[in-house]
Amino acid sequence: MNFKIKRTVLLNALSKVSRAVSLKSPLPVLTGIKFELKDNELILTGSDSDITIQTSIKENIEIIKTGAVVLSSKYILEIIKKIDSDEVHIYIVDGTLTRIEGKGSKFDLNGTSHIDYPRIDLNKSGVHFEMKSIDLKQAIEQTSFATSEKETRPVLTGVNFKVKNHILECTATDSYRLAKRILNIDSDISFNIIIPKKSLIEISRIIEKDEMIELYVSDRKVLFVFDSILIQTRLIDGTYPDTGRLIPDEFNYTMSVDSQSLLNSVDRASLLSNEQSNIIKLTMDEDQVIISSYSQEIGSVEENLSKAFYKGQPLSISFSAKYLNDAIKSINSQKVKVLFTGEMRPFIIKDLDKDDIIQLVLPVRTY
Amino acid sequence: MNFKIKRTVLLNALSKVSRAVSLKSPLPVLTGIKFELKDNELILTGSDSDITIQTSIKENIEIIKTGAVVLSSKYILEIIKKIDSDEVHIYIVDGTLTRIEGKGSKFDLNGTSHIDYPRIDLNKSGVHFEMKSIDLKQAIEQTSFATSEKETRPVLTGVNFKVKNHILECTATDSYRLAKRILNIDSDISFNIIIPKKSLIEISRIIEKDEMIELYVSDRKVLFVFDSILIQTRLIDGTYPDTGRLIPDEFNYTMSVDSQSLLNSVDRASLLSNEQSNIIKLTMDEDQVIISSYSQEIGSVEENLSKAFYKGQPLSISFSAKYLNDAIKSINSQKVKVLFTGEMRPFIIKDLDKDDIIQLVLPVRTY
Repeated sequence: MNFKIKRTVLLNALSKVSRAVSLKSPLPVLTGIKFELKDNELILTGSDSDITIQTSIKENIEIIKTGAVVLSSKYILEIIKKIDSDEVHIYIVDGTLTRIEGKGSKFDLNGTSHIDYPRIDLNKSGVHFEMKSIDLKQAIEQTSFATSEKETRPVLTGVNFKVKNHILECTATDSYRLAKRILNIDSDISFNIIIPKKSLIEISRIIEKDEMIELYVSDRKVLFVFDSILIQTRLIDGTYPDTGRLIPDEFNYTMSVDSQSLLNSVDRASLLSNEQSNIIKLTMDEDQVIISSYSQEIGSVEENLSKAFYKGQPLSISFSAKYLNDAIKSINSQKVKVLFTGEMRPFIIKDLDKDDIIQLVLPVRTY
Repeated sequence: MNFKIKRTVLLNALSKVSRAVSLKSPLPVLTGIKFELKDNELILTGSDSDITIQTSIKENIEIIKTGAVVLSSKYILEIIKKIDSDEVHIYIVDGTLTRIEGKGSKFDLNGTSHIDYPRIDLNKSGVHFEMKSIDLKQAIEQTSFATSEKETRPVLTGVNFKVKNHILECTATDSYRLAKRILNIDSDISFNIIIPKKSLIEISRIIEKDEMIELYVSDRKVLFVFDSILIQTRLIDGTYPDTGRLIPDEFNYTMSVDSQSLLNSVDRASLLSNEQSNIIKLTMDEDQVIISSYSQEIGSVEENLSKAFYKGQPLSISFSAKYLNDAIKSINSQKVKVLFTGEMRPFIIKDLDKDDIIQLVLPVRTY
C-alpha cells in the first residue's frame, strides 16, 4: 500500500468512519480502521460489529501501489488531525508497519493485517426506498431522546420505524413519555423494525447536507446509502409495543404558548426542585398560567407565564421538567400547544400549526 | 433586609464572591454567601475558611431596610443568572426565608441566620506593599502550574513569594521541574511566605482589569485589596526549600526556537508516547534538531524542527513532553531559548530576550 492524499480529504473521511469504532471493542482489530487501496479508490471501513461505516475516496489521491492494512482509529485520526502538511504520504514500510509522512513529520505506526478484519456484508438487499437526509436527521432528533436507558426491555432502547400505506412513523418511548414523528414516503412498501438509538445518533451526526438517502431494510439489519458513505446497523430483535392507543384523541383543556418563554420558565422553576425527580407543577385557569415547584429543604418558585393562553376548566398537573423541556426543544417551533385530558392523564405537546410531531408526557402524582 | 438592585451588578458580585465557596464545606453555613445590608452598602462574603472573598455594592442599589442573611451560594447564583428581569427585589419574608422577585418570577429561598456565619477578620494589618494586578496575574499563571499535586510535602503545594532588596521572587516546584518569576517591588520590605495554589488560582481569575492591588502580609495570612474586593487567604506553614542552587548558571549548549513550532512538534511527538510518562527525546547537532518518541506497542515519531538553531556539541536528552509544553506556554513569547548543561542535568527555558522568567525541567533516563 502506497499513496499520497490531500490531508483535509482524508481527515474528513476518517472523522466519519471512526464514529463506528469503539475503542473498547472486545475484538482488538475493531479498534482500528481498515484501509483498502484499490486501483481507483481508497476504501475506509470502521465498525463495532453493531454499526459499520464505510466511505470511499476517489479524488485528491495519488495511488502508487495497491494494498490493505488496519490502523488504530485513535492514532491515525490524531496524526492526520495534527500533521502540519497539505499532503500526506502513507505507505507500508515493512509487514504492517505503516509510515505517515508530511512536512517535517514522520510517523511509523504499527498496523494489523487486514486479513484479521471481520468480513462485513454491505450488500444492497432487502426492502428499498429513499428519503431526504434532512427528514431522517430531524426524525432521529425528534424521537431518539425518548428511548429508554434501561436494558430491562431492550425493544425500548431503540426507535421503532414503521412503514405502511405510504406513512413512516418513527416512535420512541421509555414508558414515561413518548415521541412520535410522522413522514410521508413515496414507495409502496411496508416494514416494522427497531433501530438502536446509538446507531441513529451516529447517522444523524454524519448527515451534513441536504441529499437523498437510500435505505435497504432486511430482517436483521438496515443499510443507509449516502452520496459516498455506507452505514449499516443491526436491528433490535423483538416486537415493538402498540403505542397508538396510548395517545389520547380527545382533549378538554388546551394551552398555547411561546416556546422560548415556556422553556425559560420551566428552567427557572426546576432550579430549586429535587435534581433527581425534578417535578414541576402547572396550574392553569383562563386568567393565568403558573409554573411552580417546591422543595421543603431549599424553597419554592412561582413563574407567571404571561405569554400563555389557556382554554378550559381550572386544571393543575405535575410532571417532570426534563420531559417537558426535551419535548418542546424537539418540536423546535416558535409556538407550541399543549393538550390535556385530565389531571392524571397523559398530555401531548405539538407544534401550534402542525401535527407531524407528537410528544406525550405522563403526569406524576404529588402529595 | 429589603433592597432592589440591578441584576447584572449583583450577578457580577456573586460570581466573584462565590469563587471562595466550597459546596462540600464541612460547615454547612459556609456553602452560603453572607448578605449584609447596611445603610449605604450591600456587603457580600464567601469563604471556605482557607480563602475569603468579600465585595461591597454601593451603586445601582435601592436600600429599603437594613439586615443580614446567609443564602445558598449555588441557588442564589443560579437564580440571579436566570431571572429574566433588569432589576431584582430581595427581601426577608419571614425569619430567614428570603424572597427574590423579578418580572413574572418569584423565588422563596430558605436562608440561614447570619449569626451562624463565622467571624472572619479582614483587617488591613501586617507588611504592606502594592503591585500591578496584571503583574500578579502573570506571576501566578507562570508559576502555579508547577506546584506539587502530592500532599506528602505540603510546602510544595503552594507558590513561594519571597521579597528582599526590592525583588519579589515567585517560585513553584514539584521537584521534577521548577518555575520562577522575578519582579521589581518599590517598597523596602522583606518577607518569605507560601501561598496555597488554589487561592492564587482564584485571585488570578478575579483579576480582570489593570489596576493596583494592595497586599497586607502577616504571619499566617495575606490580604489582597482591589478596587472593591478583599481577598484573604491562609498561608502554608513551613520553610520553603532553597531552590537557588538548583538552577545552573553555566551552559554548554543552547537552542533558540520559534515557540509555536516547538509546541506543535512536541504535541505531535507525544501523540504515540505512553500517556502516563509521555517521554520525548531531543536530539541536536548544529545541522538539525529532532524531537522523537518511541513506543514498542504503538510505533514511533520523528519531528524535524526546521525553525530551531542549535549551538554546541551533539546532545541527546529525554524528558516529559508535558513539562516542556507547560514551560513554553507559560513564557508566552514568540521565541524561546533552551539552555543545557549536560545529558542528565536540568535544563532551563527562557524568553529569547528576557531573564524575568526561568522554567527548569529535569531530564529522565531512558534505556
